[in-house]
Amino acid sequence: MSENPLERILNPRSVAIFGASDKITTMGTYQLINILQGGFPGKVYPVHPNKEIVQGLKAYARAQDLPEAPDLAQIVVPTRSVPGVLQDLGERGCRRAIVISGGFKETGEEGMKLERELKETAGRFGIRFLGPNCIGVINPHLPLNTTMYHYFQKPGHMALASHSGTYVTQVLPYLKKRGIGYSRAISLGNETDIDVVDALEFLAGDEDTRAIALYLEVIRRGPEFIKTARRVSRTKPIVAVYVGGTEAGGRSGSSHTGAMAGSDEIYDAAFAQAGVLRAADMQSLYDWAFALSEQPRLPGPRVAIVTHSGGPATSLADACNRHGLEVPEFSPGLQKHLKELVPATGSSRNPVDVTFGVDMKALFLDIPKIILESGEVDGIILHGVGGEAYFREMDRVAKGNVNFPLDQMGGYMSYIAQELHRVCKQAEKPVVCSAFADRTEDPVIGEFQDLGIPCFETPEQAVRAMGALMLAGRG
Amino acid sequence: MSENPLERILNPRSVAIFGASDKITTMGTYQLINILQGGFPGKVYPVHPNKEIVQGLKAYARAQDLPEAPDLAQIVVPTRSVPGVLQDLGERGCRRAIVISGGFKETGEEGMKLERELKETAGRFGIRFLGPNCIGVINPHLPLNTTMYHYFQKPGHMALASHSGTYVTQVLPYLKKRGIGYSRAISLGNETDIDVVDALEFLAGDEDTRAIALYLEVIRRGPEFIKTARRVSRTKPIVAVYVGGTEAGGRSGSSHTGAMAGSDEIYDAAFAQAGVLRAADMQSLYDWAFALSEQPRLPGPRVAIVTHSGGPATSLADACNRHGLEVPEFSPGLQKHLKELVPATGSSRNPVDVTFGVDMKALFLDIPKIILESGEVDGIILHGVGGEAYFREMDRVAKGNVNFPLDQMGGYMSYIAQELHRVCKQAEKPVVCSAFADRTEDPVIGEFQDLGIPCFETPEQAVRAMGALMLAGRG
Repeated sequence: MSENPLERILNPRSVAIFGASDKITTMGTYQLINILQGGFPGKVYPVHPNKEIVQGLKAYARAQDLPEAPDLAQIVVPTRSVPGVLQDLGERGCRRAIVISGGFKETGEEGMKLERELKETAGRFGIRFLGPNCIGVINPHLPLNTTMYHYFQKPGHMALASHSGTYVTQVLPYLKKRGIGYSRAISLGNETDIDVVDALEFLAGDEDTRAIALYLEVIRRGPEFIKTARRVSRTKPIVAVYVGGTEAGGRSGSSHTGAMAGSDEIYDAAFAQAGVLRAADMQSLYDWAFALSEQPRLPGPRVAIVTHSGGPATSLADACNRHGLEVPEFSPGLQKHLKELVPATGSSRNPVDVTFGVDMKALFLDIPKIILESGEVDGIILHGVGGEAYFREMDRVAKGNVNFPLDQMGGYMSYIAQELHRVCKQAEKPVVCSAFADRTEDPVIGEFQDLGIPCFETPEQAVRAMGALMLAGRG
Repeated sequence: MSENPLERILNPRSVAIFGASDKITTMGTYQLINILQGGFPGKVYPVHPNKEIVQGLKAYARAQDLPEAPDLAQIVVPTRSVPGVLQDLGERGCRRAIVISGGFKETGEEGMKLERELKETAGRFGIRFLGPNCIGVINPHLPLNTTMYHYFQKPGHMALASHSGTYVTQVLPYLKKRGIGYSRAISLGNETDIDVVDALEFLAGDEDTRAIALYLEVIRRGPEFIKTARRVSRTKPIVAVYVGGTEAGGRSGSSHTGAMAGSDEIYDAAFAQAGVLRAADMQSLYDWAFALSEQPRLPGPRVAIVTHSGGPATSLADACNRHGLEVPEFSPGLQKHLKELVPATGSSRNPVDVTFGVDMKALFLDIPKIILESGEVDGIILHGVGGEAYFREMDRVAKGNVNFPLDQMGGYMSYIAQELHRVCKQAEKPVVCSAFADRTEDPVIGEFQDLGIPCFETPEQAVRAMGALMLAGRG
């Protein structure tokens, strides 16, 4: 079997950027900044028609002038110039490209003609390419980021392949705040050559990828998609958003990536056959893929809920039932055991509600441990993750009228987080959390996330992610 | 008609705190910090059995010792002591109370007996009270915050009445990041006396409140709720989350607030009769109530979508169709007009996609204005709100290799935001936005939100809020 074309595109030893510039109105400028400053260990060749230096690097006028055939060429030049650039690259010996430029089949008749020309030129030289009309790729493990947005989170285990470049790049601050990092991210664009099936095949063998998120406006090779996804989803869960199944979604997709979308019913059936979980929105896509890339499958439907807040306890319980999860009332023996750690005003039935208190070890470690050891549930949801942030805030507000021993509070939750992680891992049961805060506000949330314990901002998001962990286990 | 009991509870001239302390393990400590430091303009009386000074204030041992009958007494003392405290307060002439303490009917037989005693004592003196088992109230317009969480956002126009105190308080950082402020917030607890019907009646006449959010585990007075909500929702939209309709949700609610919940179907019918929009989760509850409190109703189903990103354009279009909204293809005349502002690689059909570019005025002002003036839509959704944050980040990353004129970028988006607000207001048509960032990351998002233009973190949230603006208009 020949090497998957994405292998070299995501792991090049050298990259040439056609359209690299110093001007801030040009996309190539931002892409070169990110490749150069993001720590890419290979060689970088800016290509510019008349500048000798671009961003401090020697620039080249044409492919012919490059000192070597680059492993990867990224092309962001005016639409009409793209086929010629590809021709030059082919002659220079380059065999992998990313075509960023838009203006092809998504814009109508003339663009369609240009896109055919692109494909023919590439075919003549055996060039495999992503796009056109895409935004590049991110491999944080190399690292390489050919997109126009800076990648500033930790490398993760969730891969993304997307018909939208925005969902690869514009979401980076959104994902960072939620502790979500990519293993690989691939902007597919118009899929004139490399498509989502190639991406699935590549990601199946990618060692950093444990779950796959897809944003789809269309599936162009239906039977191949189903066959490949069915095989891949057995070991790596796949979550997909599909937005082409409505009149307006289909029309917008055709303006965006030239997609000819199909009905929701057909896609639902295809996803079901392929073992692909369909998410209803982008929030769930990222949430679920993150949970699936870090947590084990939920081996059965029984979930424990542990919190210090009655409202979230009830929201979580209600949402569990709505998403096919059970919240079994604990056995009298287990309730009796838990009551040693739960005040009289709380509840030990499941949900466990310890009510207002400051004993974080009971809430986030001792109680979960007892529950997991009981064997009465298959997984656990915790609400209210937080460290000393609340106390720091109250200390600030109190203006010295109350004495908070903040120096004794730090670090303790780190220990709890690590122990919780160890206990759940040992039990081989998933844990997901929620808290109405993010890691920028409370570092403990970041510690949970970096240990692979998803911590979402609302209780219902935690439940839906746990639901995904159950459904993925059924494939 | 006698004054609604919540009038005085949310606007007291004096507050006594039973259970106020200097100890950081006690909830009353945090409540007193917030009342004292939050700027409450009235008198504050800590009540403590044996301390003479609490948080720097003179403390009183019992109700009898207070220098006046306080307008409001907040009680957070051990469960068994509550009826006695209420008795003392009644004798001292106090007629309004908030009972924070838990341990009543939500815990079983004995608690139920104590709760009856509480009610009888209050009844003897004509004391009207919130709770027990609640978390206090917030009136940011006074200001008064009797809860244990600091209130640090701007006063808003969305009121919240909730069976969960957590959804009043723990969410404050979550709401702040989203630009959402309360007009009033009321933690209902067990509703032994004052209940959600009283809250609706109070909020109907409250001048700072334009929309009402409810978190419900039960409705105890069904017919009165429907009658009152039907009347109130004609002028102030009401959104509700109900979590008692599942086995686990109902069970959890009974442990939480002693609620005997009813089936989903009955509640759906009740909400429909009452003109109450039912939200599926807390995210939607806050999102919708915020939009409804700041934006006009959507007068018809036709929505325009404007963005620089093809993915969000397609997600928005697809989600619109799924939520009963239309995304009509624009007339040839309007498309022609828009094409002057849209590059050849973009689309003017609706969604309008201007693709990558730096002309924020075209995107967020000129194009929306032309569309609104055309009369072809009833409302508008914009994706990609953002100012110079992206450029600042790229400037930092570029390390001087590219020259960004950051000094020329600031302030421009403020002008655009204000003009957009003016244009939409003049057209009397709603506008909602999305961007994968929050106001802490990009101040322009905060400017939009503070003008009353909701800006959500995902496209689908914007669509669902627009859907709420349509449904509320039908009441």
